[in-house]
Amino acid sequence: MTVAETGEFGLIDRITARLGSGDAVLLGPGDDGAIVAASDGRVVASTDVLVEGHHFRRDWSSAVDIGHRAAAANLADIAAMGAAPTALLVALCAPPDLDVRWAEGLADGLAAEAAIAGASVVGGDISGSSTLTIAVTALGDLHGADPVVRSGARPGDIVAVAGRLGYASAGLTVLTRGFRSPRVLVDAYRRPIVPYSAGPAAGRMGATAMIDVSDGLLADLGHIADASDVAIDVSLEAFEVPQALIDVAAALGVDSYPWILAGGDDHAMAATFPALTTLTDEWRLIGTVIERSGTAAGVTVDGEAYLDSPPGWDHFR
Amino acid sequence: MTVAETGEFGLIDRITARLGSGDAVLLGPGDDGAIVAASDGRVVASTDVLVEGHHFRRDWSSAVDIGHRAAAANLADIAAMGAAPTALLVALCAPPDLDVRWAEGLADGLAAEAAIAGASVVGGDISGSSTLTIAVTALGDLHGADPVVRSGARPGDIVAVAGRLGYASAGLTVLTRGFRSPRVLVDAYRRPIVPYSAGPAAGRMGATAMIDVSDGLLADLGHIADASDVAIDVSLEAFEVPQALIDVAAALGVDSYPWILAGGDDHAMAATFPALTTLTDEWRLIGTVIERSGTAAGVTVDGEAYLDSPPGWDHFR
Repeated sequence: MTVAETGEFGLIDRITARLGSGDAVLLGPGDDGAIVAASDGRVVASTDVLVEGHHFRRDWSSAVDIGHRAAAANLADIAAMGAAPTALLVALCAPPDLDVRWAEGLADGLAAEAAIAGASVVGGDISGSSTLTIAVTALGDLHGADPVVRSGARPGDIVAVAGRLGYASAGLTVLTRGFRSPRVLVDAYRRPIVPYSAGPAAGRMGATAMIDVSDGLLADLGHIADASDVAIDVSLEAFEVPQALIDVAAALGVDSYPWILAGGDDHAMAATFPALTTLTDEWRLIGTVIERSGTAAGVTVDGEAYLDSPPGWDHFR
Repeated sequence: MTVAETGEFGLIDRITARLGSGDAVLLGPGDDGAIVAASDGRVVASTDVLVEGHHFRRDWSSAVDIGHRAAAANLADIAAMGAAPTALLVALCAPPDLDVRWAEGLADGLAAEAAIAGASVVGGDISGSSTLTIAVTALGDLHGADPVVRSGARPGDIVAVAGRLGYASAGLTVLTRGFRSPRVLVDAYRRPIVPYSAGPAAGRMGATAMIDVSDGLLADLGHIADASDVAIDVSLEAFEVPQALIDVAAALGVDSYPWILAGGDDHAMAATFPALTTLTDEWRLIGTVIERSGTAAGVTVDGEAYLDSPPGWDHFR
């Protein structure tokens, strides 16, 4: 059965029947708006959109996978502010001939990833479109904590990362070349494993700046460096290259570091902390914040500009 | 210059430079998430998506107009919960050859309509797509009031409407037939005049249920009737047909009531109130809530099913 046969309202009924509801949901789907707890009188909000052919391919990922990824991209932004995700709103634009089971799978993936982060799908909208498009808005609660913004890094701070780097990007390379393995990498691209709780935990440890790694580590550290008017130097030897990346890089005859330094999609958390901070185990020390000088690059690797990396992903290119 | 030439980050910079910031904005665009005041510990949230060819045409409306309409559709949902709109987040999917001035015009329209409702654009995302698509999420603040949901209508309540009915729908008919006038109707379609403040005001008057008229009055009253397990009877003579509608209906040889009873896009507020409520001037009494019987229609006009109306808009059809 297609979504056109189900109809707009029929599809909404089918999807909402599959969604759970967390503690923060005061009024779920079905009215003009949802109502979500914002316990300290503030709400954190972020929007990301995924377009077929630009951000996902239906022959590379299942509907459930794409739901996980669409939710993760947004939920990670909330965590990177130091907040706990509470809710998702989803706009789905679908070709009329889309199988209704695909839409239901997408809803299942969105709901499952939201649940991993402690959030729920609370609302959305559906429209026909010739281009399959998924726009997600995530909400979050700081629970009284100060937000961790991009502009707070100071010279002398340390730079650390929580979560995986390079896995999803290597998985995408593998898929692009027509392979479906190694599974650990392909699965990382399909369903990123995001360290959601590391975001608020970084705030409690006194993080001075934070960002989720979506454009690539160096590009995203560049956003922190620009917003904070500092420079960041990353130490290449701080990264332990996972065996799966070593193996695939060897098989394909490429270097594994661009996946780690310039690959997106894993949604790791990158943050800066005061120099004497004792980091918890999930954080890996990778560099230091230094003074910015007028002509130098905002982010360097072992003191040098890293020329092999693209300057971050541009979704119009 | 096209958006592809500007690039994703260049376009974001151009757009954010055009946005204002209201009192509720604690952190605006530029970080992983925005932070918006939710003064009473709750946030109201709603998402609507507009797809070119389905919801708008670039030859019928300017970019600024489309921004106004996209914002209004979402802000009206917040008002219809009895809340004051605070913020918008916008995902724009655009063909690479879109003129950057069009995107800037859209941002201007979104920001201007948000300002009319007392809200601000606080964040968003941009992607390439072959289909021009605008997904908007609106947030709102109940300021301690109870939300006005769809399910609270009770037999004996009165039914009233604030705002215009039929203007936008008649304007769409005019445009569909290749005309550009009368301007009052075409402009109503391009930039709906939404009675935002009527939403929270209805809550203060004790409204038992409320909805924004986006699918058409009878269809939207049907949503209230279904959610409240009641029936609603509307009196046709309660509607004063505006002269512009009478004139256009005569010129086109059609009936004007379908525009009023089944047309969307004006985003009027329809609400039910206890019988003895003294309504303020912006509300027009149009009907009563009655007991539902198993077989009868949820919404009737002068006691009869209104057969000339389509059953609400289905965006896959």
